[in-house]
Amino acid sequence: MPAKERIDDFADFAHDLADMAQTITLRSFRTVLSIENKEDSSPVTEADKAVENLLRQAINDSFPSHGIIGEEYGAENEKADFIWVIDPIDGTASFINGVPLFTTLIGLLKEGEPFLGLIDQPVLKDRWVGGVGYNTRYNGKIARTRKCDQLSKAYLYITAPDIFSADESIRIEKLEKEVKLRRYGGTDCYHYGMLASGWTDMVCERLHVYEFSAMIPIIEGAGGIITDWRGMSLEGFDEQGVIALGDPRLHEDVLYYLS
Amino acid sequence: MPAKERIDDFADFAHDLADMAQTITLRSFRTVLSIENKEDSSPVTEADKAVENLLRQAINDSFPSHGIIGEEYGAENEKADFIWVIDPIDGTASFINGVPLFTTLIGLLKEGEPFLGLIDQPVLKDRWVGGVGYNTRYNGKIARTRKCDQLSKAYLYITAPDIFSADESIRIEKLEKEVKLRRYGGTDCYHYGMLASGWTDMVCERLHVYEFSAMIPIIEGAGGIITDWRGMSLEGFDEQGVIALGDPRLHEDVLYYLS
Repeated sequence: MPAKERIDDFADFAHDLADMAQTITLRSFRTVLSIENKEDSSPVTEADKAVENLLRQAINDSFPSHGIIGEEYGAENEKADFIWVIDPIDGTASFINGVPLFTTLIGLLKEGEPFLGLIDQPVLKDRWVGGVGYNTRYNGKIARTRKCDQLSKAYLYITAPDIFSADESIRIEKLEKEVKLRRYGGTDCYHYGMLASGWTDMVCERLHVYEFSAMIPIIEGAGGIITDWRGMSLEGFDEQGVIALGDPRLHEDVLYYLS
Repeated sequence: MPAKERIDDFADFAHDLADMAQTITLRSFRTVLSIENKEDSSPVTEADKAVENLLRQAINDSFPSHGIIGEEYGAENEKADFIWVIDPIDGTASFINGVPLFTTLIGLLKEGEPFLGLIDQPVLKDRWVGGVGYNTRYNGKIARTRKCDQLSKAYLYITAPDIFSADESIRIEKLEKEVKLRRYGGTDCYHYGMLASGWTDMVCERLHVYEFSAMIPIIEGAGGIITDWRGMSLEGFDEQGVIALGDPRLHEDVLYYLS
């Protein structure tokens, strides 16, 4: 089967997975939830677990040879050529507090490389999908990042200042001084969709593999750039610093402050 | 006319104002906007100004004897018994960046006291209205804050840490250590709607008169409490520290850290 058809097939399947996730997230949102704290003290709800279980089952049914990495239940079959990477509810704290900017993230790695990504916000009906050789789409229409060739004109989103180490904070603060407006979010990976659609210019934070795997194809497929703070490709399984830019011309300037 | 009927009439009129505001905000959202920076360096768009102009005109047409205070165009007829207090787009930075948590705020003061308040988020179709002797409603249904009798169980929202003075930051940091989860927002007065609906527990920040005037009737009419950091009623025209709680039983504990 030609590569072009395959990625369309996978994109269709990712849409199906996001639709399945919505059946749980929309039913649970703004209800009384059973909440636990994980080892890293981040919250997790019964909905996070139920979504991940549902998506794992669907992947195993449709693609039994594929691997899976999920935020809640870890990795299985991780030597497979294709690995689905799932964050069932990114922004669980937003989800818990009734803020409709949580998302479901679905990524697909092909031979370890990001191949397809999907961000879905079910309340707002905002969905971004992008892949290798597959232009990023926002709700079915081509999405493009916007131009911004000077730091002094750029809008910068950061989840929260306290996710960074002391050393990272110093570098971030230098960058913050150069931009037009810096906003703290709490809105998590929804930011990357905003960037892909050209509504904002920069996102700087720390992400895990189950988050950045889906972001890479979406940002790159919309004309942007996403790397670590040294300017290298995001890879591996560890949480790491991430910088995403709508206009790649700013990358060098930003790395000057972050690296 | 009995007081009960009057507030219903005013509530109907506030709904009309919010509907008018939506005609501009929804048309402008996620488009290329002309943005200026105000003296305090906060951004303002043509949409902020257009909404405020439209609402001022409508108020003057319907209630020529009433006063108006607006974020963009200041005060007129401020000795009137009834004064409408308007923030045409609260969360302009969110509005500019395509984040659908900006709101239109409409308050009504009666003899200087908060009498009616409305928060409208037009993209999400989230609207809260509350008043004196008028239970707060979320999209037409009675809204109630949720119970939370221990700081260690409370979710706390703060817009951003850098809106506070050094002295205020020290106090806030003490409070942050006591709660279950602290989130930075950037989502502005939408938080107070979340609180009124019982989706979260605490909001702590600094607000102007054109913001807190509408919040007071909404929070109080939903069973919550909203004061300054000394526990006093919010009044006057200056920006000031605000604490809002869904469960008034936590008020004393919170003031211990903030006052």
